[in-house]
Order: sequence, then C-alpha cells, then structure tokens
Amino acid sequence: MKQTCRVLFLPDNRFVAVPCGETILQAAMDADVHVNASCGGSGSCGKCRVVIEEGEVEREPNLKLAEGDIARGYALACQTKVLSDLKVTIPLESRIGDRRIFERKEPEPAQGHLLSAADWEERLPEWKLDPPTRKVHLVLSEPTLDDNASDAERIKRGLAIEAGMREVVIDYPVLQRVPNIIRQSDWDVTITVLDSGQGLRAVRIEQGDTTRQQSAIAIDVGTTTISAELIDLENGQILSRASDYNAQVAFGEDVITRIIYATRGTGLAKLQSVVVGTIWNLIKNLVEQAGIEYCNITHLVIAGNTTMTHLLLGLNPKYIREEPYIPSATFFPWMKSSDVGLRIAPGVYIYAIPSVASYVGGDITAGILASGVFNSDKLTLYIDIGTNGEMVLGNKEWLLSCSCSAGPAFEGGGVKNGMRATGGAIEQVRINPIDYEPMIITVGRRKPIGICGSGLIDSLSEMFLTGIINEKGKINLDLPTDRVRASEGGAEYVLVWADDSATRRNIVITEVDIDNLMRAKAAVYAGIEILLSSMDMDVSMIDELLIAGAFGRYLEVDKAIAIGLLPDIGYDKIKFVGNGSLLGAHLSAVSREMTDKVNKIAHQMTYLELSMNPNFMDHYMSALFFPHTNLDDFPSVKERLEEYRAAQKMAAEMPPEKREVG
Amino acid sequence: MKQTCRVLFLPDNRFVAVPCGETILQAAMDADVHVNASCGGSGSCGKCRVVIEEGEVEREPNLKLAEGDIARGYALACQTKVLSDLKVTIPLESRIGDRRIFERKEPEPAQGHLLSAADWEERLPEWKLDPPTRKVHLVLSEPTLDDNASDAERIKRGLAIEAGMREVVIDYPVLQRVPNIIRQSDWDVTITVLDSGQGLRAVRIEQGDTTRQQSAIAIDVGTTTISAELIDLENGQILSRASDYNAQVAFGEDVITRIIYATRGTGLAKLQSVVVGTIWNLIKNLVEQAGIEYCNITHLVIAGNTTMTHLLLGLNPKYIREEPYIPSATFFPWMKSSDVGLRIAPGVYIYAIPSVASYVGGDITAGILASGVFNSDKLTLYIDIGTNGEMVLGNKEWLLSCSCSAGPAFEGGGVKNGMRATGGAIEQVRINPIDYEPMIITVGRRKPIGICGSGLIDSLSEMFLTGIINEKGKINLDLPTDRVRASEGGAEYVLVWADDSATRRNIVITEVDIDNLMRAKAAVYAGIEILLSSMDMDVSMIDELLIAGAFGRYLEVDKAIAIGLLPDIGYDKIKFVGNGSLLGAHLSAVSREMTDKVNKIAHQMTYLELSMNPNFMDHYMSALFFPHTNLDDFPSVKERLEEYRAAQKMAAEMPPEKREVG
Repeated sequence: MKQTCRVLFLPDNRFVAVPCGETILQAAMDADVHVNASCGGSGSCGKCRVVIEEGEVEREPNLKLAEGDIARGYALACQTKVLSDLKVTIPLESRIGDRRIFERKEPEPAQGHLLSAADWEERLPEWKLDPPTRKVHLVLSEPTLDDNASDAERIKRGLAIEAGMREVVIDYPVLQRVPNIIRQSDWDVTITVLDSGQGLRAVRIEQGDTTRQQSAIAIDVGTTTISAELIDLENGQILSRASDYNAQVAFGEDVITRIIYATRGTGLAKLQSVVVGTIWNLIKNLVEQAGIEYCNITHLVIAGNTTMTHLLLGLNPKYIREEPYIPSATFFPWMKSSDVGLRIAPGVYIYAIPSVASYVGGDITAGILASGVFNSDKLTLYIDIGTNGEMVLGNKEWLLSCSCSAGPAFEGGGVKNGMRATGGAIEQVRINPIDYEPMIITVGRRKPIGICGSGLIDSLSEMFLTGIINEKGKINLDLPTDRVRASEGGAEYVLVWADDSATRRNIVITEVDIDNLMRAKAAVYAGIEILLSSMDMDVSMIDELLIAGAFGRYLEVDKAIAIGLLPDIGYDKIKFVGNGSLLGAHLSAVSREMTDKVNKIAHQMTYLELSMNPNFMDHYMSALFFPHTNLDDFPSVKERLEEYRAAQKMAAEMPPEKREVG
Repeated sequence: MKQTCRVLFLPDNRFVAVPCGETILQAAMDADVHVNASCGGSGSCGKCRVVIEEGEVEREPNLKLAEGDIARGYALACQTKVLSDLKVTIPLESRIGDRRIFERKEPEPAQGHLLSAADWEERLPEWKLDPPTRKVHLVLSEPTLDDNASDAERIKRGLAIEAGMREVVIDYPVLQRVPNIIRQSDWDVTITVLDSGQGLRAVRIEQGDTTRQQSAIAIDVGTTTISAELIDLENGQILSRASDYNAQVAFGEDVITRIIYATRGTGLAKLQSVVVGTIWNLIKNLVEQAGIEYCNITHLVIAGNTTMTHLLLGLNPKYIREEPYIPSATFFPWMKSSDVGLRIAPGVYIYAIPSVASYVGGDITAGILASGVFNSDKLTLYIDIGTNGEMVLGNKEWLLSCSCSAGPAFEGGGVKNGMRATGGAIEQVRINPIDYEPMIITVGRRKPIGICGSGLIDSLSEMFLTGIINEKGKINLDLPTDRVRASEGGAEYVLVWADDSATRRNIVITEVDIDNLMRAKAAVYAGIEILLSSMDMDVSMIDELLIAGAFGRYLEVDKAIAIGLLPDIGYDKIKFVGNGSLLGAHLSAVSREMTDKVNKIAHQMTYLELSMNPNFMDHYMSALFFPHTNLDDFPSVKERLEEYRAAQKMAAEMPPEKREVG
C-alpha cells in the first residue's frame, strides 16, 4: 500500500494528500470540502454519500447503502477507506452549497508542522547519547596479600581505570552485596554508576557483563494522562511506549481538587500510591512489550506539572493553591524509586525535571528543553494549553514564563455538552455558511456524545466566520435555520440533532458555553500579550510559535487564530511539539548534558505572576471579543470574514434554483 | 583534702607522691617498696601490716587487726587510705628482704605520660570547633506574589545569604516537613546542614532558633567495650561519658568468632541489632546524664576496628577472615543512623572513621588523628595491643602500618588463670628477688580470681628479672621456694595460694602460659622491627612511642620492656594516648577539618602485610626470648638483670640472721 494517497474531490476540483487507509470523510475535512456528516463518522446517519469515480477503496458494509447504490459507485465517506489515488464526486444530495463560491487561496497546512527527528537534530545539535546512568564492566584482579584493597576500593579503582570515574560513592545496598557477588562472578562484574550532578554513585552491582542491558524510562505525569517510554540506553532507541489515564482522576479532574484532597488526612499518601499504581502498570506494559527484564532498567525520569510532581514525590502541595502560590520545591533531589513504592530494580533513582513555579512545572521546562527554545536564536513563543495555559517567551538569551488560569473550558469542562477527547467526542466541525448545516467528525468515528476542546474551537471559529455568532459571542437568532434557537438556558446552536447523537439528546453550543470559552481564550491571549509587552515586544516579532501538549495535537491553527486564541501570525511560523514534556524527560534520561541543561533552564527562566501585572485586566478585557477588540491585529481573520460575508451575500442574491442544496 | 599526698616509706627511706585517697598498698607498689600482699588488696589475708608513724589516714575496719595493734599504729596497707602526707614504716613481718640491697636509680615514671589537653593543643595546633553539622537560624521573608520562590528555594537562599552555603540539597524527609514547619514558625526556622565532604545537605528543620542546642556523639566501638561521649557543639565541651561491654561479646569474644557468627544465616543482622542495642543504651545514658533532649543531637561519629564497623553498618565481614583478608570496604559512605535502627533524632547521619585494611581499622586511623602523628615531625611508633597488635610507624610525611596476630594472651586468653581486667583480676605484681614471694594488687581490690594482661606482663617481667624463668621462659625448679613446682601440666609458679584466692584454687602461671605470652610479645616486637626495617630504620631512631587502648592504660612500661614486648627506648619517649579511637571520633565530630584529615590519613597510610614479609619469621624467632636474642638491644634490661643478680648474690652471701624475712 502506498504511504500517501491523493484524493481529487469533484466538483470542487480540490486535491488533498492523506495517509492511505484514511477515510474519505477525513480527506474531505482536510481538503475543506463539505460532505454532510451528522453522526461524527459512525456510519449511522448515512448522509455522507459520495461516488467513487476512480481508484481503490475499502468499504465497511453498511445498511444505509442499497446494493444498487454500491453498483453505481456510491459509498459512505465515513465508512470508506482510501487505498490508492482517488477521484471522488460529492453528489448533490451530500453537498450543502457550492464551495466554489469561495475564491479562497489554496489551503495552508492548517494542522501545522509537527516537529520531527530531523528538527531535533537541528534544534539540539550538541545532543549525544551519554545517559546519567552508565554501566561499567569490570574484570578485576583477584586480591592477594600483596594487593589487598577492600572490595569497595577495588571497584572504585576499576571505575577510575576503566571509565575515568573518580570519587564514586557506593550506595549501601550495593556495598552490602558486593563481597558475595564479586566472588560468585569471579571478579567479573558490571557496576551501574549514576551521575546525579552532585558526585557519582555506584547504584547497582551485577555479575558478568550486562552493559548491553541498560534501559531508561521517561514518563510524562500529566494531570489526566500519563505517558511513558522505554528507551534502550545502548543506542537511544525507544523500545516501547504506553500511556494511560492518571488514576488520580478518580479523586478530582484538575490539580486544584487533587491538592484539596491531598491536604486532608492521608490524602497525599493516597494520591501518591494511586499515581504510583498507574506508573507501575505502565512500566509493566513497557517491559512486556519490549520483552526485556525489569533489572535492565537503570534510570527513571519524570516530568510533570508542579502539583503532579509533588504528589508523586510525596511533597506537600497545599500552598501551591493558596496565594501567593508557593510550592514546597521547584528542584527535586534525586530519590530512590523504591522510596515512592516503585520497586523496579535495585538502585533506580527518580530524576524529576525541575519546575519554575507553582503553575509552570517540569512539563514546561522539559518542553523548552525538547523544543530547543533554550538554544534558539529565534524569538519563540511556547504554549501549552490545558486547564492552565502555560506560556514561555524567549530564546537562547532569556526565557520568560507565565501561566493563566484558562479554566477547564478547553478540556470540555464548564461547557454544556463538553467532554474529553475520548470516543464519541466531536473533534472536528465545519459549518456551511449558506445554510448553517454542520459537518462533524468524532474521535473513534463513533456516534457523537459531546464536544471536546478542538471541536469547541472549530465550532466557535465556524460559528463566528459564518455569522452564527457575532464578535461578542452572541448568537444571531434571526438566521434562516432551526439550528439556532432560544432555549431555557438561553440561545443555542444545535450541532447534532438528538436522532444522530449517541445520547439521543441534542448536542448544542450555548451562549453560556461561548462565554466560558471566550474567557478562556482571552486569558491565554492576554498572557501572550503580557509576556511580549514585558519585553517591549509585539506579536509581529515572534519568529516561531510552538504548541505543545495533547490539546495541540488536534488543534487547527486557523480556527484557533480565528477566535483569537492564538495570535495571527503566518501558519508557517507555527509548529506542534507534540508531548514536549515526555520528549524532555526522554532527552534527560539519555543525556547528562540535557539533564544539566534542563536544570539550567529551570534556574534561568523568569516567572511572571499575571495576577500581579497591572496591565493584565486591560489585555484580558480587550481579548473578550472574537477575535479581539482590535480586529486589525488579526488581518487574516479580517480577510476571511470579508470572504465569508461576500460569499453569503452572493448566495443570498442567487436565484434559489441555482443554489445546490442536498 | 589535698590533691596529692607524699608518703615516706621507712626503713627504705623512699618517697612517693600519690593522689590523696589512694591506699598505702598502691603507694608502696608505686614506690617500689615491698609489702606482703597475697589477696590482691581485698583485706582478707591480713599480711600487709604497716605502721603509720605520722599523718592522717582512713582505715577500713578489719578483723585481721586487733584493737591493740591499731593502738600501736598498725594498719593494713590495702585497707588504709592516705589522707595527708604520711610517714609509714614497713615492719619486719611485712617485709621480704631489704630492698636497700639494690642500688637502683630513682624510679622513672614507669606508668608513662598520659597525653593531656595541653598536649593536644601542641599536637593539633590547627584544630578548631567547626563541626560537620551546623545549625543555621533563618528568619526568612514571607513569600509574596512578587517574591514567590518555592519554600525549598527560599531556604537555600537563606542559607546562602546567612551562612554562605551554596548548592545545599534538602533531604526528602526535611522537604516533606518544610511547608508546614516554615509557616507554623512564621518563617523563623533553624536548618541543620551536614557537610559530608560530598556537598551540603539540609538534614533537619526546626521551628525558631535552636542553634544553641546542638550536640554530637562520638563512639569507640570496641570488640569488648564500647565507649561514648556526648559533646556540646556550641563550645566543644564533653557533656557526659558512658561505656559498657559490647553486647556482641555473648556471640564470641573476638572478631573471628563474630565474623563466623555473622556469616551464618541471619547472624549479621543479629550482631548488628545487638551492638545497636548497646549503643542505644549508651546514648540514652549520655542524654540522661547531660539532661539534654535527643533532638539536640545532630551528628554521630563512630570509630571501630574494621570488623566492628562492618557489623554495625551491616556490611559482610566474611572475607576479613579469609586470606587474603579483604574487607567489604575501608571507606564507609555516610549512612542515616535510623538505617541501622538508631532513631536518635531526624537527620542524624553516621560517619564511620575509615579503615586502612582488615586488621588496621578506624580505631587506629582515629588514634593517629588524635595523637597528631600525621602532623608530627617526630618519628613516631603508635601501638595498640589487643588480640591483634596494630602498629603504625611514621610522621607527617608518611605512615606505615601493620597488624600482628598477638592472639588473646594479653587479654587473658590462652592463659590458665588469665582473665579480663575486671574485678578480682591481678593487675600489678612484684616478686621479691630474695625469697620469690609476690606482692599483688587486684582490680577493685577484691580477692584474686585470675590474672589480667598487665598482671601477666608484670608477672613475666618479675619472674624473668628475679630468675624464676630464664631467657627462654623455662621455670627454674631448683629455687628455694615451694612456689615453683612441677605439676601435671608442667612447671608452674604459684602467684596466689588457694587460701588467699577467691576461687579457693591456686592461681598459677605455667610454662605453657609463658610460651603463649612469649609468642604474643614476639609477634608484636617482630612487627615493630619489620616496620622499622622496611624504612631502613632501627629502634634507636624512634622519637616517640605512643601506646593506645585499654591495654595500655594499665601497662607498666619498664615491665613491657623487660620482657621485650616494647623496644628498649627511654621512658621519656613513651606516652600513653588513652582511648585514641574515641579521641579521634571526638575530633572528627567537632571539626570538618579533622574529618577531612582522618580520611586523608586512611588514604595515605600504607599497610604492610606481615605474613607476606620474608623477614618476618626471622624477626619473630629472634624475639622468642626474654627480652630478645640480642640482649644488647635491651641495654636497660641488661643493666637491671645485672643489678638483680648482684643483689641476689649479695643476699646469698649474707649470714642468714642478717636477712630480714617476714
């Protein structure tokens, strides 16, 4: 099978390249071609009928399509996979309006550029495989009456000669095992030495040569999700990956509720043991996938926000939550993994990536490391949006960070039909500007249940551009569609009718939801402006905008800009880091220099407390518009609005029979 | 009461100064004046009758003395204390021979010079109070939104500003308590910082200013006895002292039997817990005596031989015993005291003084520190005799050590009536050269039970000088006394007749005993000669001979020289260190520099394996004589022998009526 397949959509005459195996619906979404799709790609509404003109596809059997239809080339876009280059016609009944009415430029890569291995090489040129733990194989001379150094001194001598390691302290559990192991193995042993940056420690002794068996684990301890990698320290390759929900979720969705839980009774111990349980399962999974032994693992690096790191290491998080928001620590001494209950293998220590402040944690420091911002000539804005929006502005000279309380809106919280990005969550939305009908895709292509963050941003953006809402976020109830309506809770737009939803209830976006999302995006944007203005800079000076985190994974840049969440800079300046936290943990696990660098980053990064900034409220208030009070700061959005309005005007002026309505 | 009282013994006309309160028997022993004394000073034989001519005494009531005798000034020397300057006549019946027959020089200070505080000042001029743990009082500024460093960083900043301490790592147990303590105390805390020589660690946090409450404990972990001191780190003063038998004695008297015990099953854990029990009781005792709180204690230093240190720290001692005699370690990483079960106070670490080899332990390294040998221009021989004789030769330029297996003879082992220096042990012995009657003193002045090390050396020396044994250690059965006789086990000398002993059996010294003692002293002397000859030196070049350890405490130098245990150098060159191990632990507990020095000493000291030395056997064989094959190497002994022989000849030539026999 080809890696990439090209799809030509007719009658729009629009090309798009997609990974082979992708559905035609997704291809249409990527090509900005409208296909009716009300059930999120689950195959239940049967509305996304297309005609395969040329090329090879794989169809899922579906009752919504008659035998005769199939014979005539009909397929359901959401149930049909692209297997080769393809020519597809969107028939009249599946189209809503003629998109050719728009004279838009060729679509830019709205999904942005995800940083790849080649990018890292450019960004971190000095990177080399030199992990903080190193196994040294020693074939020692047997002691004699003439050469009667103690076992410990003999090992130290060996380490000095073989590896140039001096002043190694041997951990007690090792020292206690040395005499037997060293003799059982006939003076042929492997010593694992940890360089903690505060001197060398021998942390493990094994019989014979085990230098080929050394692996590290890098973990991103997220509030919601924990992701882990097993890395072969011989060659730096990732042996396996795993991720799972942080089991602490059962004790509260966000950091604040967890802090409250932790500060009551034995709450901290409980939360610690729960997250350790999740991590332990992940490690088990990693080890089984890779088919290695636990005792191959010599090193463990974790990156998490400040609260997650506190909870894992058993540190009191209470004052993170209370003004002036002080964590117990931002730098975390190396701790034996067994001290938190992770009995992986003897002598495994946890290195926790340092934080900068209560709300700029090790996940951000790690991301700044991994994305090479600390090493870049370019003025970079690094942004990680979750419940809090964390932002870092800087380059290799300086780093300035802040955190704004975005609230849970972007994670689906505080939104009537909001939900996390799990199966059935609407993650992509298009709205036809002529008749205001939506086209949606859900996570897992299941019947829609609710709307996740990227779906909400898509919805807002589309509602704004099509004029369903105005710049203040108010819904226009005068539009000629029954999807906009007044309900008990206020005005709303119906994204999915009850018939098409998994819940058998309408999925709507209300004015209250829009208000919450507006506040969230305004907080983020105000944060960006404060960072810039603190340095007497403005948006135009940003050379690169890096978006990190799970949220960014599904974000469409043009949509985020359209609502004024991100500044209106060229799409080519915007790149996706992916899981910067995990990447940073990975780098630290395989490189002493990177460990050193990440410590330096945490030391050097300045934290700006937004609530202290006298200009914050002004910036925030100005951002409580779509996209912003100053529309001139968003020229591309202004242009698109004009296009939409012109198209709508043209459509309204067409005779009804010319309008193609499915 | 006067501190020192002078006693004039008549008719010998000999003066001696003794501490007031001392018994007349001890004064006579010190003055080298013979008084019959068969029961060791217990008052049971009634033979040590003296007449108090002038001065004040305190008499114990004793049935052996009639009322009339007391009226005439009679007293039992062992039951009568000197309270003022005294004139005492030894009556005919208590004298054995006229000591005036000897034309000896005034007695030199045979007990040697015990190093005093003034000596330390001269020997360790750079010594200053600067302990490895230091309490720093911090009054921190409360955090604000502007100044929002983490609690840990705030403390580190305080330590940098207040005490110039940088890169302090905060131990986890401290970090976990920081947020609450720091707020409860209104940002007024005391941090205990440990300088382990491998970076600084914050090991404790307390509310308010506790800098005046800091104490350290120094412990000498001996195979038999454990001695401890509590030291005020504010001023370096000793607050209390305590000592006790090492409870491990129940599992074997010497290191070898303990190693065997430790290597079976859970033996090591058992021995560790037992010694920890002894230490814990001592600490309790120290704390109660001084009336301090446990939490004042910030530091713990131990010095012990290599095996004792292994057993305390839970290290495998097995290979100490097997050729080529390799310990697990000679340098011991700092360990939390709670890790061995000593839960004294939070954050107390154990520093164990490093060893040089399996049989030159931390007790010796500590002694070399405390005695200032490492700092001396003088060529010094440091010697500590127990089951093993450990010796160090050197000065500030170099240090050479060895250990000879003296066997248990000097501790009373392998000797028919040998015993440890506990109550009832004969510790001092004189034998009349004319009629071969002994004069003995026991520990605690109780009825004699057996003979301890110093009593054995006294006995050998006296038996040799008086001609009871010849230079080969053979008993002369032809002497005109029934104390020398052949028994089932061979020839023997009866030191105490059954009637006078606590056991109701004769206390004897047999030829087999003498043989064992001869081997022991020969091993020690051969060791000394090997050390010297390795450096192309000889006995005459020794500037100072330092005797350390419990054994040395009771040793009479002239006796030790007479049998050839110590080299025949001027008495003024010989000094007693006392418990060098405890002194060294003390110094290390109160001074970072001394801790550093003792590490250097252990690193720099060369260990010479005697069993490897091709010349050892020659030296050993030559030393299997009293005092030595080469009598010319012992000129003072040669001279004394001549005096004794001349006196004996003179006595033999006197008409019997002129001999004064009691």
